[in-house]
Amino acid sequence: MKLLKEVIVEKGKVRGEDVLKVDSFLNHQLDINLLNEMGKEFKNRFKDENITKILTIEASGIAIAAIAAQYFNVPVVFAKKVESKNVDNDNAYESKVYSFTKDKTYSIRVCKDYLNPTDNILVLDDFLANAQAALGLKDVVDQSGANLAGIGIVIEKGFQDGGKLLRESGIKVESLAIVKSMSTDGIKFA
Amino acid sequence: MKLLKEVIVEKGKVRGEDVLKVDSFLNHQLDINLLNEMGKEFKNRFKDENITKILTIEASGIAIAAIAAQYFNVPVVFAKKVESKNVDNDNAYESKVYSFTKDKTYSIRVCKDYLNPTDNILVLDDFLANAQAALGLKDVVDQSGANLAGIGIVIEKGFQDGGKLLRESGIKVESLAIVKSMSTDGIKFA
Repeated sequence: MKLLKEVIVEKGKVRGEDVLKVDSFLNHQLDINLLNEMGKEFKNRFKDENITKILTIEASGIAIAAIAAQYFNVPVVFAKKVESKNVDNDNAYESKVYSFTKDKTYSIRVCKDYLNPTDNILVLDDFLANAQAALGLKDVVDQSGANLAGIGIVIEKGFQDGGKLLRESGIKVESLAIVKSMSTDGIKFA
Repeated sequence: MKLLKEVIVEKGKVRGEDVLKVDSFLNHQLDINLLNEMGKEFKNRFKDENITKILTIEASGIAIAAIAAQYFNVPVVFAKKVESKNVDNDNAYESKVYSFTKDKTYSIRVCKDYLNPTDNILVLDDFLANAQAALGLKDVVDQSGANLAGIGIVIEKGFQDGGKLLRESGIKVESLAIVKSMSTDGIKFA
């Protein structure tokens, strides 16, 4: 997505070889016009999938999912992150997610009432790197008996293996920008 | 707001005397059409305030703020919740928030880059009870030198003192639904 790549180049901040800060428009401050353009693009890429619900994960997926949902005319469900020590909740689907950045495992939880076997789910998230969060969301969808129609990502780190892993398992993954490499000299897209 | 009150009566679940679960449309699953109606109503109530930015707090304020921002045509900034033990961050405004529900103090943090002295800020959040979160956000706005133009709330618990406290300090507070009392017998609005 051309506009997104331009914004990433203009406003993204590279920290080391694998940290891309996009706080000024995607993760802390939100550029709502850009989110709308992204929402239209997600709709375009998944227009044949008959999506019935968008699933994302708190906190930075929520705005992306809420704005995009307007183009699909479907509700959003966001998975909640909970400390692993929390007791199990009988009325929730739960999965473990390992965070490489924080070297910590957390649980994600979705109330059973909001995912149904008849649902055709689009998972949306801001970043795709090792796909740990995406796999956790896929696990939650699988537990519910719903169909995972695809995964839409704003920024994929193409130099990490998450995208490959998901695509090789047969999932339709659409990333609006795929970063091939980045350094303080600049960002290269795939 | 009539539509919102109807949805609260139909789908809200009262737990004890002061817990109102609205997970099916506001806090976990999101009814995007309802959020749009709420966004229009917030715009209507703050149309004369020349808002330049909407400030909210993760996670459940994000969708409300992102959808509402479309009617104001302004960016959103969401404050991040961080554990109090985290070290201070020189480039962030920080405030402490005490959570009565969790009996725990946490910090909220907003990067200094995203609040400016020229900003006219609308704070939006899902619930208003003791106003601890609202006061934390007000503190962050005050630190930045920006003007707090008002606070918009989806559901105010009118039987707790947060709304009174904020209004008596001169802040314009607009709540789309004010719950006067609630029990398993029903919900009464102010």
